[in-house]
Amino acid sequence: MPPVVSVNPRTGEIREVFGDESSPDDVVAAAGAAAAAAPELNRLGRTARASMLWRMADGLEADAAAIVETADAETALGESRLRGELDRTAYQLRLFAEALDEGSYVEAVIEHARQTSLGPQPDLRRMLVPLGPVAVFGSSNFPLAFSVGGGDTASALAAGCPVVVKAHPSHPATSERTYAVLAKSASAAGAPAGTIGLVHGHHAGALLVQRSEITAVAFTGSQRGGRALLDLVGARPDPVPFYGELGSVNPLVVSPEAARTRPEEIGAGLAQALTQGAGQYCTKPGLAFVPDGEDGSRLCAALTRRLSELAEPLVLANQGIRDSYFDQVAELSRRKDVACLVSAARTGGAGYRVSPHVLSVPTTQLDQSLLEEVFGPYGLIVRYGTEEELLSALRRLEPALAGAVHSEPGETDFTRAAVDTLVERVGRVLWNSYPPGMAVTWATQHGAGWPAATAPHTSVGVTAIRRFLRPVCWQDVPAELLPEELWDNNVTGIPRRVDGKLNLGA
Amino acid sequence: MPPVVSVNPRTGEIREVFGDESSPDDVVAAAGAAAAAAPELNRLGRTARASMLWRMADGLEADAAAIVETADAETALGESRLRGELDRTAYQLRLFAEALDEGSYVEAVIEHARQTSLGPQPDLRRMLVPLGPVAVFGSSNFPLAFSVGGGDTASALAAGCPVVVKAHPSHPATSERTYAVLAKSASAAGAPAGTIGLVHGHHAGALLVQRSEITAVAFTGSQRGGRALLDLVGARPDPVPFYGELGSVNPLVVSPEAARTRPEEIGAGLAQALTQGAGQYCTKPGLAFVPDGEDGSRLCAALTRRLSELAEPLVLANQGIRDSYFDQVAELSRRKDVACLVSAARTGGAGYRVSPHVLSVPTTQLDQSLLEEVFGPYGLIVRYGTEEELLSALRRLEPALAGAVHSEPGETDFTRAAVDTLVERVGRVLWNSYPPGMAVTWATQHGAGWPAATAPHTSVGVTAIRRFLRPVCWQDVPAELLPEELWDNNVTGIPRRVDGKLNLGA
Repeated sequence: MPPVVSVNPRTGEIREVFGDESSPDDVVAAAGAAAAAAPELNRLGRTARASMLWRMADGLEADAAAIVETADAETALGESRLRGELDRTAYQLRLFAEALDEGSYVEAVIEHARQTSLGPQPDLRRMLVPLGPVAVFGSSNFPLAFSVGGGDTASALAAGCPVVVKAHPSHPATSERTYAVLAKSASAAGAPAGTIGLVHGHHAGALLVQRSEITAVAFTGSQRGGRALLDLVGARPDPVPFYGELGSVNPLVVSPEAARTRPEEIGAGLAQALTQGAGQYCTKPGLAFVPDGEDGSRLCAALTRRLSELAEPLVLANQGIRDSYFDQVAELSRRKDVACLVSAARTGGAGYRVSPHVLSVPTTQLDQSLLEEVFGPYGLIVRYGTEEELLSALRRLEPALAGAVHSEPGETDFTRAAVDTLVERVGRVLWNSYPPGMAVTWATQHGAGWPAATAPHTSVGVTAIRRFLRPVCWQDVPAELLPEELWDNNVTGIPRRVDGKLNLGA
Repeated sequence: MPPVVSVNPRTGEIREVFGDESSPDDVVAAAGAAAAAAPELNRLGRTARASMLWRMADGLEADAAAIVETADAETALGESRLRGELDRTAYQLRLFAEALDEGSYVEAVIEHARQTSLGPQPDLRRMLVPLGPVAVFGSSNFPLAFSVGGGDTASALAAGCPVVVKAHPSHPATSERTYAVLAKSASAAGAPAGTIGLVHGHHAGALLVQRSEITAVAFTGSQRGGRALLDLVGARPDPVPFYGELGSVNPLVVSPEAARTRPEEIGAGLAQALTQGAGQYCTKPGLAFVPDGEDGSRLCAALTRRLSELAEPLVLANQGIRDSYFDQVAELSRRKDVACLVSAARTGGAGYRVSPHVLSVPTTQLDQSLLEEVFGPYGLIVRYGTEEELLSALRRLEPALAGAVHSEPGETDFTRAAVDTLVERVGRVLWNSYPPGMAVTWATQHGAGWPAATAPHTSVGVTAIRRFLRPVCWQDVPAELLPEELWDNNVTGIPRRVDGKLNLGA
């Protein structure tokens, strides 16, 4: 096995070498430990699992300084962003703890025996139970919120599913440090050994998703990586759900009036959105539709100027992402029908440092080859003439995680047409706002059709828990053998549907 | 294209020849019509779609005599069972109409803009919207309730998704007759052309699931057929959800006390359960665990006697199912360690008539080769010694749609152990009852892990609608551009979660 190496992306130098990547035996052991833990983690119940999530949040905060320092050394995302990400990770764990206490996520239903027009109906009670061990793939771009202790792990543990994380190779030290906090917190909360596991290495990840103990896979990463894992999972004798949040090219529409009244503001906002986290957001609005004419040109000029004035260096997470960035922008810039507004030099400086790259093209020239996701500070401006030209271009887009419309309050017809067209293909539609930045709430949606994601679910927000649950129906089963959530007397006070009617419980 | 042929399974004779199977052009046209209908069917709204489902139910009931007669001629399931199935189909359509009126299925969530510990949170509103055109594969064993107008179609239409059905070749005339009623009802309700379509033929089905317009596939049928379609869907450049309800071997456990006190009753119940619908139920309890010793032997004798006294002829749906039945039972009976309690003669009589076949084996001899589903009136009795021997055998079983425990009220520990072990691998667990027969309710669960099904969802009951919906989040979008379900003023009176708290609405 090759060694696990932590690299400083600001210099490209190795900062630490761990042991070897996980062996096949390590993977078998991790999956086996997770399977052994599953029944006990389920029996712990909602209250004890909530307390485990609280401990994990507290533990991450207690170790925040060291985690953030390690993550910054490995990812160059900056201490301020990483402290924010750690806070978000702890907030997320606690939000799932609250959802466990609230209990509606089990979707408890009771149908008492009764006569129907079809004859007698037995006593039927249904609720969601944990699916089983889940494999979680950490992402490159969020070393905390979408990695070892991120949303996939939090939602799976909340559901009652043990987790085996495959660490992202861009931040092994952060992964190990986070893992240590989670494992200690789980143990302190009385959760079984095997509640959380960690493996390193590409090969280990591929083996992991093929293990029969693994009952679902959650992945945040590239289309290529996601597709390869999906195909492995699909080829299992017993395929299991694969929840991939892959990349997407997220459209942002600027209306004629918005371009006229706010060219500077939107140019600046777009520059910020394209370069935040060095452009390594899956919700980056990398495809901006800007009207033809002087107003649109003013907006483009503002964008260009802002990008040339960037104070912060932009450092990508690893060499692979840096090389892909340069290769993709070079390939895109080769086209004769594409204008270059801002050009990234091939040698961006030390380590994996890069500079922004922005191209511009008329809607008439927009084709699929211009619509591949480019991870990093890249954007494509699409100049449109009529509203019909704009809508027709939007209708040809693949599903995306997010789509934004910038318009003025008086432009209701335009805004409605743009919003409705986007709703047909995006998971989140924003008005006068920029997608990177997503609150973790009950209302969050992070997902859309292929290639943005692989299943009609969200990977962020409370409802992400639904991915790791399966329904069970108890028919005529004596009360003492039912889960307490399904007793006639609503002892746990959760919302339930009884004889067809929803009630709020306590 | 080969012709579409309706066969009388009682005689094996052709009763009617339709035109040719659907051509590739027919499939393209059907998928295109469904895609064109999708936005309009969504815009119809919940109330109008509910009224469409009511019209469909009324239409089926108005045409009941002819539909039942046709279905009986094609399936030999008998008029009484088919009249019940038609009533169930109409009931199911109306239950989804009620769910549309109730509205909780859209899972509406409103989070008003507010300050959080992480900073300002925007206004976020989320609900589920239709996925798009759905391909539905009719089943062989339920020509009405799991076919053209069955649960998959009802739940997809309720969700707002146009449906293209691939008719099962065992009952093309029933499929055409049902389709005519549904298409007429949809049109009368103001739904767009393309709301429901129908294609015939194996090749057409394979083409259909590969059409980019199709956004989800619902299938009820064999593991082999389901696996083949799943692989086709998985190989699409844009994979979509495949909801397959495949077969399963459903365990039924008889406790020592139950065998002692009710050998006749349980023997008779099992005989009925194995032969109902000629044993063509995916929930047939084909694997019965019976205690060693005299009590268990009395139960087996009762089962054997009841099966030899059958009044009704058992006719399988088509030649393929009949041939598989004979091949499988012959293969299984060849084993030296297996005792034959009831033997089906290779030539069962006219048409696709067969007789029951029941084998018996000790738990020690139970292996995977004895655990393949046999469609038809076949059962395997497994004789167990100790409770531990029983539980250990149950733990080795693959996931199943249903599992039953027959025990006495005093045997709480035994019952608990058996129920809990079953819950880990079945979708529905029954006490002192037999699985074929499943009520359509909010609490229904028809699904389980692979190979019983392909996704952790149900294909029967109100929550089946969730398969055909995807979440969308509106961020900071002006009220007049939101769906009415998400307005601050709850004009539609549906249950919603507002700022974290569930409320019941009107």
